[in-house]
Amino acid sequence: MKLATLKNASRDGALVLVSRDLRQYLPVPAIAATLQAALDNWDAIAPQLELAYASLNVGQAPGAQPFDQALCHSPLPRAYQWADGSAYINHVELVRKARNAEVPASFYTDPLMYQGGSDSFIGPRDPVFALSEEWGIDLEAEVAVIIGDVAMGASVADAAQAIRLVMLVNDVSLRNLIPGELAKGFGFFQSKAASAFSPVAVTPDELGGDWRDTKLHLPLLVQLNGQPFGKPNAGEDMTFNFAQLVAHAAKTRELAAGTIIGSGTVSNKQGNLFGSSIGNGGVGYCCLAEVRMYETIESGAPQTAYLKFGDRVRIEMVDAGGASIFGAIDQAVTRYREKA
Amino acid sequence: MKLATLKNASRDGALVLVSRDLRQYLPVPAIAATLQAALDNWDAIAPQLELAYASLNVGQAPGAQPFDQALCHSPLPRAYQWADGSAYINHVELVRKARNAEVPASFYTDPLMYQGGSDSFIGPRDPVFALSEEWGIDLEAEVAVIIGDVAMGASVADAAQAIRLVMLVNDVSLRNLIPGELAKGFGFFQSKAASAFSPVAVTPDELGGDWRDTKLHLPLLVQLNGQPFGKPNAGEDMTFNFAQLVAHAAKTRELAAGTIIGSGTVSNKQGNLFGSSIGNGGVGYCCLAEVRMYETIESGAPQTAYLKFGDRVRIEMVDAGGASIFGAIDQAVTRYREKA
Repeated sequence: MKLATLKNASRDGALVLVSRDLRQYLPVPAIAATLQAALDNWDAIAPQLELAYASLNVGQAPGAQPFDQALCHSPLPRAYQWADGSAYINHVELVRKARNAEVPASFYTDPLMYQGGSDSFIGPRDPVFALSEEWGIDLEAEVAVIIGDVAMGASVADAAQAIRLVMLVNDVSLRNLIPGELAKGFGFFQSKAASAFSPVAVTPDELGGDWRDTKLHLPLLVQLNGQPFGKPNAGEDMTFNFAQLVAHAAKTRELAAGTIIGSGTVSNKQGNLFGSSIGNGGVGYCCLAEVRMYETIESGAPQTAYLKFGDRVRIEMVDAGGASIFGAIDQAVTRYREKA
Repeated sequence: MKLATLKNASRDGALVLVSRDLRQYLPVPAIAATLQAALDNWDAIAPQLELAYASLNVGQAPGAQPFDQALCHSPLPRAYQWADGSAYINHVELVRKARNAEVPASFYTDPLMYQGGSDSFIGPRDPVFALSEEWGIDLEAEVAVIIGDVAMGASVADAAQAIRLVMLVNDVSLRNLIPGELAKGFGFFQSKAASAFSPVAVTPDELGGDWRDTKLHLPLLVQLNGQPFGKPNAGEDMTFNFAQLVAHAAKTRELAAGTIIGSGTVSNKQGNLFGSSIGNGGVGYCCLAEVRMYETIESGAPQTAYLKFGDRVRIEMVDAGGASIFGAIDQAVTRYREKA
């Protein structure tokens, strides 16, 4: 099943079903007004959505209309929880290597995770707003899941059962604010801007054999200003799968339906700077920080700049036939102006 | 205006008005079903609530019923954001002094704040659930505000205007999990259990002259197992007021209506261990960690234990006439059992 949220006058938008080929959508106000409403009562609502989805895919759903990703908000325009892991330890290894530090052994058994702001996500085609380029604006291309209710202390197996939907995310990070903020000891706050999620969220069964061991085994395609920048496989080098990340989040408290758990920046192990970029035959990167770390390790200092106003980021994933699974996050970095 | 959320079959409960003396409540389904719905459209809804509140207080509201705090959920049973400051620097000074470290100078100009989980708060009379006493279960008695929409980069003055409601909070902390988690660098996650808020949230005008400079100038009353444990004045030694905390949270992203911003553990500067407890003439503490820090500073090691299963925490604030303003948080620490 593929689901999206169309922007409307409300803060939560309108839930719609999207056909597998992303060409048609079907409003479902009689089933659930919003995605959160569907998640709140998933066991009762999902079967109704599945029936309508089957009709939509065979061109038999009255009321179906052409789907335009540009009209989408993030599937959950606001959520009750957004917790982002850092499951690709290669990313952490590079950070540490760039500053000549060791990765603690516990990082391979105990996931890193931070609590993110979830009150006002931006849409997949909305500008990435910032007040200053000096913040060091960076993308982080990731995979994320939306879960149902999870009990405190849930097992990894139970956590796996709670995964309802999969989507992509651009976890916008403000790199130049991170060192000062982490030095204070309380984690990220100002250094994480509002995140954007893919136009479409999909149930794991849509992913077929590419969803295995609660990992998504497909390349995550990132473009910067229209040029290929990254294509690492999200199923490789993921030290903790989504079920493990969910169980980590649930260790000391219950998780409520609609909680979003992120993978952290997708990152595949590669040899070195001169073999890691797409131009040099590598799989590239899902954030600018990573190429800067390679540069630092090999030449002592980063050369690649962070994002500037006007820069454009595109994040997408395609199936074996080349068809877009989630639609594309496609955003321009833009100087913030307060809404009228 | 005083507002509460009564538990019902839904995840968000039912918004009600509560009379100033906390004796009567009035359902307001025709005005707003939930507190979040009221906050989403506050400018239109608040005047309607004000009219009904005036009737309720003079005994002229048809449908008013006796108010029972035990039937309340937290005013927002789940919220889109919960960000907790640490505005009482005395608390930080004690933490540092107990480990012979200096407080960085920047801590007096740049607030500490962490992003908390907001997907499933517990009610003010609900058990504080944990799976193990070994987690080092502690209360943190605080004041918090609920805000309206705030623009990115909002001034402190604009942030002050966005404060909609004030309430109390028990920010349950798992002390023995904190050192390991903060050492990982990503801030609190498992070390913060679900928080509980006071039965009633009040508009700042209800607080009269006790709400000045966006601080609440009244003692915060804490009892442990029926004995007085703390009564520090929440208006004293608050290095950052609520407007400053809100502006800090808004520096790099918009804040959406319904965001909750906490003060951090209320803590007044006191001389030393033997003058700080209520029994010794001091104003006592809002968390067990603080008395343990005094003990560490004066005798090299903490003596006071963290909370055990069966221990009871009560947090309240009364006006000059001794009347409860927010109702009381009153919770027993309880071994977690999954809901059926």
